[in-house]
Amino acid sequence: MLNFTFQNPTRILFGQGQIAAIAREIPREQRVLITYGGGSIKQNGVYDQVMAALAGRTVVEFAGIEPNPTYETLMNAVRIVRDQNIDFLLAVGGGSVIDGTKFIAAAAPFQGEPWDILAKYAPIQSALPLGAVLTLPATGSEMNGGSVVTRRATQDKLAFIHPLVYPRFAVLDPTVTFTLPPRQIGNGVVDAYTHIMEQYLTYPVNAPVQDRFAEGLLLTLIEEGPKALAAPEDYDVRANIMWCATLALNGLIGAGVPGDWATHMIGHEITALHGLDHAQTLAIILPSVMTVKREPKRAKLLQYAERIWGLTTGSENERINTAIAKTREFFEQMGVHTYLRDYGIGADAVPALLAQLERHKMTALGEHQDIDLATSRRILELSVAA
Amino acid sequence: MLNFTFQNPTRILFGQGQIAAIAREIPREQRVLITYGGGSIKQNGVYDQVMAALAGRTVVEFAGIEPNPTYETLMNAVRIVRDQNIDFLLAVGGGSVIDGTKFIAAAAPFQGEPWDILAKYAPIQSALPLGAVLTLPATGSEMNGGSVVTRRATQDKLAFIHPLVYPRFAVLDPTVTFTLPPRQIGNGVVDAYTHIMEQYLTYPVNAPVQDRFAEGLLLTLIEEGPKALAAPEDYDVRANIMWCATLALNGLIGAGVPGDWATHMIGHEITALHGLDHAQTLAIILPSVMTVKREPKRAKLLQYAERIWGLTTGSENERINTAIAKTREFFEQMGVHTYLRDYGIGADAVPALLAQLERHKMTALGEHQDIDLATSRRILELSVAA
Repeated sequence: MLNFTFQNPTRILFGQGQIAAIAREIPREQRVLITYGGGSIKQNGVYDQVMAALAGRTVVEFAGIEPNPTYETLMNAVRIVRDQNIDFLLAVGGGSVIDGTKFIAAAAPFQGEPWDILAKYAPIQSALPLGAVLTLPATGSEMNGGSVVTRRATQDKLAFIHPLVYPRFAVLDPTVTFTLPPRQIGNGVVDAYTHIMEQYLTYPVNAPVQDRFAEGLLLTLIEEGPKALAAPEDYDVRANIMWCATLALNGLIGAGVPGDWATHMIGHEITALHGLDHAQTLAIILPSVMTVKREPKRAKLLQYAERIWGLTTGSENERINTAIAKTREFFEQMGVHTYLRDYGIGADAVPALLAQLERHKMTALGEHQDIDLATSRRILELSVAA
Repeated sequence: MLNFTFQNPTRILFGQGQIAAIAREIPREQRVLITYGGGSIKQNGVYDQVMAALAGRTVVEFAGIEPNPTYETLMNAVRIVRDQNIDFLLAVGGGSVIDGTKFIAAAAPFQGEPWDILAKYAPIQSALPLGAVLTLPATGSEMNGGSVVTRRATQDKLAFIHPLVYPRFAVLDPTVTFTLPPRQIGNGVVDAYTHIMEQYLTYPVNAPVQDRFAEGLLLTLIEEGPKALAAPEDYDVRANIMWCATLALNGLIGAGVPGDWATHMIGHEITALHGLDHAQTLAIILPSVMTVKREPKRAKLLQYAERIWGLTTGSENERINTAIAKTREFFEQMGVHTYLRDYGIGADAVPALLAQLERHKMTALGEHQDIDLATSRRILELSVAA
């Protein structure tokens, strides 16, 4: 096991009816800014539950945080926070709303140009406290300190991580996911699955607990994901997926083991240039990373083949090939296509994606920092079509 | 899955050399009381590492916290804290030292008789901050808010749990466990194993993640425990056991599922009256609880038999019997005997143990609160000898 530091202070309020509990979590006198996206929370009752819980408080609203939240939109919220002396941010939505709200939390008190938090890793001295009411199990943002923000003007999709932007609390009520469209459920399961794989499918460091926790989450997503599409109002299924997605990226399964993250970094550029959903890019790139990096990942690929897909016969290469194929099949089963061509993107798109990676200094990716631009090219070319 | 609230703010500093990191974790101007036990930390270098990390600070020492820490001893530390205006407590030891230090932290600022914190659940308004340098992987106290304290005068062994006494940080350096005697390693593995079983072996609530995390920890303890006895200086083995023991009782695997805890409650009375090690009492009582409560626990016993011990053939009752027998064998393999008779205690001891349970209102134990005194009698009688 590698040395590590692990701390995660977010308070999880899990289960049906827990939105009402936010009243206890936000000091009564604080001025609250509620942030959300396109307004689905007004159709599904979540907005009403949040407003009922905060009755009698000073509550300001900021709507319109888009998927892959943009700097341009978020800076409008920063101005509101500054102008209206907001004390507490409450993100009501999925990973994009929560990521965006973390940026607002850090940017509002920031001296200077807040884009530098992302572009120059400018140090943060303070951040507004924030909480989250999760509506879409996927990114894990509700229980970590990470945030990804896109600058519309330049098509840069960049991340920052800071202890000050962990949500103080996160409400995980599975019933609020009943009305999600299948595309969002499929995306969420693929996103969580890939988060786990980025921390699991590297090389062995004798960390059996981390391996088994990761495998437990993968197996649960494989079991529960298709059920979530088939029976949208099955509470337990939605609860299990929600808890998987949070645990997939709260720091626990990654503590003491190497991380890959090449799939995410390459995927971000596809979203930036072509607008694909985040999870779609992961479903495209992950199988190619598994294929191209099969030698350094061989030991974990074989463990994955056996423990996740029950593959114990055939040659090592056959087991690895089948495990990769089954991963792809699972993503397709969740309704997420796994080739660029499925989204109308061809091999001619590869040079621009590589140029973006180069511009963002993403030239030494993966757990061995050996995915250079030539390797990324092979990964992308393999991702175009079957 | 059941509704739950989960929060665990303890910062884990894991790995060789991490004791030096405590310098960053304790504000420089604070007056520190170091608490420890019988002095083994002076032989194995831990004391020297701690003092080196705190060089230049005001450091006061309190030695002599015993296994099953007593109120009488701890109140001596409370007087030192009050007299010397201590700001921060640093527990250097195993679960007893950390549990005792949590009581000191809560008792020092307490208005009134601190025993009421245990005996009357008197509410705590504040507590001194504390940190921990763990020397014995076992109880999980380093990453939770629980504490068990014994009053020598009355042989009462009582617990309290409070968010204010979570350690701010805990150093888990596997190398400090290399010099532990085999008895303490065996006890530690049995203690952690039983903590997991108390949260796992109840009844199904469709919580596959919690089940798989618990099973992952159990399997790892079964693999690594005997290796720890055979090769005391194998870093990875000690690291894996240490992380298992912490995760066994940090709230995570118990979030959203029922808990049993009858084994612990009955075991506490054996320690109080007969002075057995905590883990010895668990090794004695757990197999009897599994046997006596086999009907309400049937579904989970079968899952345990299959997933932990690979038992898939034979009748249900045969599989359950074998799983219980294998649990007992594992404890014996770790050097912890599993019958009262092994410790020179006979059936004549049972009435006094039941009287203690009654006095402590432990008359409705287990996940169904149906372990009354008559059931505890059967459990204890079954625990006397094979």
